[in-house]
Amino acid sequence: MRAQAAYDELLRLLRERAILASVSELLSWDEETMMPRGGAEHRSRQQALLAGLQHERAAAPRLGELIDELEQDASAGEVERANLRLARRMRERAVKTPRALVEESARVTTLSQEAWREARRADDFGRFRPWLEKVLQLKRDEAMALGPSDALYDTLLDEFEPGFTSAQLESLFVPLERELRGLLESLRENPRQTDPSLLRRSVPEQKQRELLLEVLRAAGFRGRLDTAAHPSPLTVGPGDVRITLRFSEGDCSEALLGALHELGHWLYETNLPAAQWGAPAAEALSLGLHESQARLFENVVGRGRAFWTFWLPRIRRAFAPALDGTTLEGILGAVTHVQPSLVRVHADEVTYNLHVLLRYRLERALVEGSLRPAELPAAWNFVSLRSLGLVPRTDNEGCLQDGHWSAGMFGYFPAYARGNAVAAQLFAAAKTARPEIEPQLAEGNFSPLTSWLREHVHSRGTTLPLGQRVQEAAGAPLGIDAYLAYLRERYLSGDAARGPP
Amino acid sequence: MRAQAAYDELLRLLRERAILASVSELLSWDEETMMPRGGAEHRSRQQALLAGLQHERAAAPRLGELIDELEQDASAGEVERANLRLARRMRERAVKTPRALVEESARVTTLSQEAWREARRADDFGRFRPWLEKVLQLKRDEAMALGPSDALYDTLLDEFEPGFTSAQLESLFVPLERELRGLLESLRENPRQTDPSLLRRSVPEQKQRELLLEVLRAAGFRGRLDTAAHPSPLTVGPGDVRITLRFSEGDCSEALLGALHELGHWLYETNLPAAQWGAPAAEALSLGLHESQARLFENVVGRGRAFWTFWLPRIRRAFAPALDGTTLEGILGAVTHVQPSLVRVHADEVTYNLHVLLRYRLERALVEGSLRPAELPAAWNFVSLRSLGLVPRTDNEGCLQDGHWSAGMFGYFPAYARGNAVAAQLFAAAKTARPEIEPQLAEGNFSPLTSWLREHVHSRGTTLPLGQRVQEAAGAPLGIDAYLAYLRERYLSGDAARGPP
Repeated sequence: MRAQAAYDELLRLLRERAILASVSELLSWDEETMMPRGGAEHRSRQQALLAGLQHERAAAPRLGELIDELEQDASAGEVERANLRLARRMRERAVKTPRALVEESARVTTLSQEAWREARRADDFGRFRPWLEKVLQLKRDEAMALGPSDALYDTLLDEFEPGFTSAQLESLFVPLERELRGLLESLRENPRQTDPSLLRRSVPEQKQRELLLEVLRAAGFRGRLDTAAHPSPLTVGPGDVRITLRFSEGDCSEALLGALHELGHWLYETNLPAAQWGAPAAEALSLGLHESQARLFENVVGRGRAFWTFWLPRIRRAFAPALDGTTLEGILGAVTHVQPSLVRVHADEVTYNLHVLLRYRLERALVEGSLRPAELPAAWNFVSLRSLGLVPRTDNEGCLQDGHWSAGMFGYFPAYARGNAVAAQLFAAAKTARPEIEPQLAEGNFSPLTSWLREHVHSRGTTLPLGQRVQEAAGAPLGIDAYLAYLRERYLSGDAARGPP
Repeated sequence: MRAQAAYDELLRLLRERAILASVSELLSWDEETMMPRGGAEHRSRQQALLAGLQHERAAAPRLGELIDELEQDASAGEVERANLRLARRMRERAVKTPRALVEESARVTTLSQEAWREARRADDFGRFRPWLEKVLQLKRDEAMALGPSDALYDTLLDEFEPGFTSAQLESLFVPLERELRGLLESLRENPRQTDPSLLRRSVPEQKQRELLLEVLRAAGFRGRLDTAAHPSPLTVGPGDVRITLRFSEGDCSEALLGALHELGHWLYETNLPAAQWGAPAAEALSLGLHESQARLFENVVGRGRAFWTFWLPRIRRAFAPALDGTTLEGILGAVTHVQPSLVRVHADEVTYNLHVLLRYRLERALVEGSLRPAELPAAWNFVSLRSLGLVPRTDNEGCLQDGHWSAGMFGYFPAYARGNAVAAQLFAAAKTARPEIEPQLAEGNFSPLTSWLREHVHSRGTTLPLGQRVQEAAGAPLGIDAYLAYLRERYLSGDAARGPP
């Protein structure tokens, strides 16, 4: 009974911190979608105070006492043990980080995101540079406070993917890059007959919005969808997960594939165990697993034959006359057309990871101090040329294209590559367990897939670390084999009669 | 020097509370405009926690020590003294109110406002009744905690208009009601030739929105304008004051006059001394003074000859063909047409105060316990018949029409009547000081008026109590004479050649 009372008190403390975090999230949503330009200065003070209050709760001595006491309790179940493990980790990080640093980070990143949006409007990195310098310094200070000074990047990485190191990343990235380059080489030698130009047709934003809402609702989505400079999911609370999108009137696939990406995030957040809301074990496991859900819907589903079998006729009608006469083979070719390009969020599946690698190398150099923010545009352009064979014409096409660094998210990008790999593993396992998944997708029914994901991923929260969760769900350790097999199947299997994926 | 350090610490504590309050305000704005229906449950927990954190700061013993210490400081200036006086008042109220009650009030009123919106959709008071009961009980508990048990309503009144009692209200309301009834009687005997039907013409919401934004911008407005069930101003922070409006496609004046009302609130909030933001003396003085600004723009300006001289041709063009052929005399007649009606926010200027009186009497009876929530619809209909000669056909036209009680705002309504009286006093004083005000309004220039108000009202914050502020700005004590003179001038001066106001 004493343990139960202590555990209840622990959950109350953790829940209070989580409520404050959800308030910060609403403020962030407002910043990205609604806040007038003059609002950033005060917003930065609001965010700083909220960050400080969250830090105070995470670092509270009482939290430490309760964790110490409850760790002696042999009767704790799996969820309880996970909550204790995660609470300890949270508290240890908080105790090492000064509250003033946490507040200053929240304040500066709010202003810096506004500066990034302004710099995007002006297509001028120079306006963002002083803010990048400030944010980077704060993240370096944070990493210094948290971990050894010779592993600053690893320390930041650990925030998004607990336990992952850059050594592990290299062991993933080196073979991945080699294989992707091999795949690109094969495609160069034996080009596929795909034509992406039909996606470049113009469709008014309102038509796109209505159609993609129809798709999202068919997959169970119910929530707010708003326009923002940087598409993202924002969890304001259980029952109120919002997504933001960017529309391009000259491209009829960008917002749709973006919507499927955010759908993956939305399903994860929405299907977490709501009854335990506020406990760390009821949160999403990691950003890598989060991105796996997003990339699964964007790519594995959204560029796949089953999805388009059902949706093409509907999209043709909704977008008329833009896609009039488009065949299933034609659209599948277009959405799987492989061609190196400059902007990550528009990249095809095969070259996408090269974008991630580019950012990973640059952000690591920034954090470790071997690259200065002032050098970023030149370094970006150099790496882009070497890696993608292309040089950005403007900052918006280059180092200003992503909002992550303005938000202080150094160490986030690798999550996309890990997400791609995990997505392929999970989808293969799901299809084996439920062979009806693809036939049902081809009839517009997402539920065999979404219910498998809910059962094996979403509803599990963070009771296990990523490796064990993937092992349990996919029946195999975390790796890139399933992903490479998936890419080869979709992009190299030259079965002309069958056509693209 | 010691006093300065103590004063700085005091301001830091007060500012922290104000930042939390501004976060609550953003949450409220989101509730009214953006939040999906499923979001209210979690939102109520966020609001409860934020209310608790504000209470903790207001009741902090350290705040009390600093106030005690600083009140000994003879060198304090007017602003410092006002901050001490207001901080003491805030702390005394907070100390008397249990934190649990404050949190529960915030939680319940969030849910109750959602229930009110639902009840409005269903036009069914029954759905709102259990929530009204809960909110009323909490407000009674709060009044019990704060003041003597035989003056519960006065205690609540004091929250919105410090120092005002129901005895003072009665001494305002009794002669006001008598004079208004006399005025209505005169109008019945000598009817004015006014025709309100041209306002009932249909104008699409988008056209209305564009036009009223043009008007608002001409008056200096820059901020968000969104649609909500209950129009209101929401101060998210300095530089980010938002207003919400309700549009009616079948009425081309409702949203416009509503926009002018919110403009008055917006100007007040926006022109408060921003450099001192977070100090209580830099906040708006009282809700009565706030409403005076709103009612000044909605009525004194918005139903006046000068305003329409400039705007009618523009509105005619923007609303074409709805107002084609409408003359200045015609529109002035329409916007000053006097006729008892059921809904307060659509009421004409003369009968408006009868709506306020109706609510004042009912809410006082509810708070004092002589009227039970279950009896409200019947009581409302009875008082409405006696006071306005009309009985609501549905709850939406009757006791469900206003959102104030669902938000726990018992004691607010009298602020509208006081606001009407103060508006007339201030406008008369402004015109005497700056005779160019009306000629300039007739040329579309709001600034002589807005700059006088900024100088004499807005930028003064709460350095003086209401009576002294009005005395200083208007050169006369708070009273209803200027207001009655204004109404008589506009509604009874039968100068046919001159026509309506």
